[in-house]
Amino acid sequence: MYHFSVCGSKTPNGVELEELPVSCAAMYTSSEHLLKSDIVLSVMKKYLRKDMQTESSYEDRKCKIRRLEITDKSKGFIELLRQLTVCDSLSDKEFEDRFHELASQGDDHIICVIEDDSTGKIIATGSVFIEKKFIRNCGKVGHIEDVVVDSSARGLHLGKKVIQFLTEHAESVGCYKVILDCSAENRAFYEKCGFKQKEIQMVKYFT
Amino acid sequence: MYHFSVCGSKTPNGVELEELPVSCAAMYTSSEHLLKSDIVLSVMKKYLRKDMQTESSYEDRKCKIRRLEITDKSKGFIELLRQLTVCDSLSDKEFEDRFHELASQGDDHIICVIEDDSTGKIIATGSVFIEKKFIRNCGKVGHIEDVVVDSSARGLHLGKKVIQFLTEHAESVGCYKVILDCSAENRAFYEKCGFKQKEIQMVKYFT
Repeated sequence: MYHFSVCGSKTPNGVELEELPVSCAAMYTSSEHLLKSDIVLSVMKKYLRKDMQTESSYEDRKCKIRRLEITDKSKGFIELLRQLTVCDSLSDKEFEDRFHELASQGDDHIICVIEDDSTGKIIATGSVFIEKKFIRNCGKVGHIEDVVVDSSARGLHLGKKVIQFLTEHAESVGCYKVILDCSAENRAFYEKCGFKQKEIQMVKYFT
Repeated sequence: MYHFSVCGSKTPNGVELEELPVSCAAMYTSSEHLLKSDIVLSVMKKYLRKDMQTESSYEDRKCKIRRLEITDKSKGFIELLRQLTVCDSLSDKEFEDRFHELASQGDDHIICVIEDDSTGKIIATGSVFIEKKFIRNCGKVGHIEDVVVDSSARGLHLGKKVIQFLTEHAESVGCYKVILDCSAENRAFYEKCGFKQKEIQMVKYFT
């Protein structure tokens, strides 16, 4: 195996490592020695063509996006959420009770997951619930929550796939807008997904 | 009637006019002439004692806070929402359908209103819905939305009453936190209500 060495988080072509498929990004970061190779360059060229990048990397992993299923607890769904925030272990009954509670809301609360067919693991997720209002002619608003991509699957644009799936759902059920709260450092990602910053989020914890 | 004249938006004691009861604030702003009067000073003294201010002004108006009722459409509820954002006229059926739809969610979505008993008008409102999650040990989060106080009732601390009511509801049903989105200029108000700024809100409109 030949390796490239890079300084910082970009390839020599200026492409962010975050935007590269994991296998490709690993080639950049696993060695400090620079060796030229036609084979490596050929592989790199494929991934550095940004127009091909998303689809090829997504399909290469044979991932599919779908709604959460009750069997997903055994596929690492809770462990994935734990990468986002505090998420204690749940018994099968606790998981199933909450699953059915949410499922009873039908299209008004959905959770999507991306499963890696090659490993059978859930590697990305996000949720959206539909708020019904009186304003805007009895309008509806989609609230996106709890978006996370497995640390081993960064660079596959799975986060974008999740946001796209949830946004399209919100639009399909008649929402006039979809909103979410994020840290300032994630703003650029959501802007790429077509969002704009609007207000600030305030929080009060009960402890 | 005797009047005080003031410069800017504060009384001579440094109290923001916004914090005064409407009737009192009007005395400050309706004349440019300053006349001393024991009667006026006595009235002022009562309201300038901040510890008495909220309760006395709230009770003076004989307002009560309660959940939205189906008869509130005829009490100016929709007109009040119109002060917040676009809110078209709704037919009785449209209003009732949405009312029942929300009511069917029980404690998971409530709208509170403050009615002025002297006029029979709804002068403040806000809503909170309860999101159920898997994270935080199947935790729940309260989302506060659509808080508005009638322009004629500013200074009575009704906004604070509404936030307090909704926050207490969220806590009572087991939420670990309550969140809301607001403009930067309203941050100070929510800080007084015990909230802290955390993230930023991103939005995507479907048009």
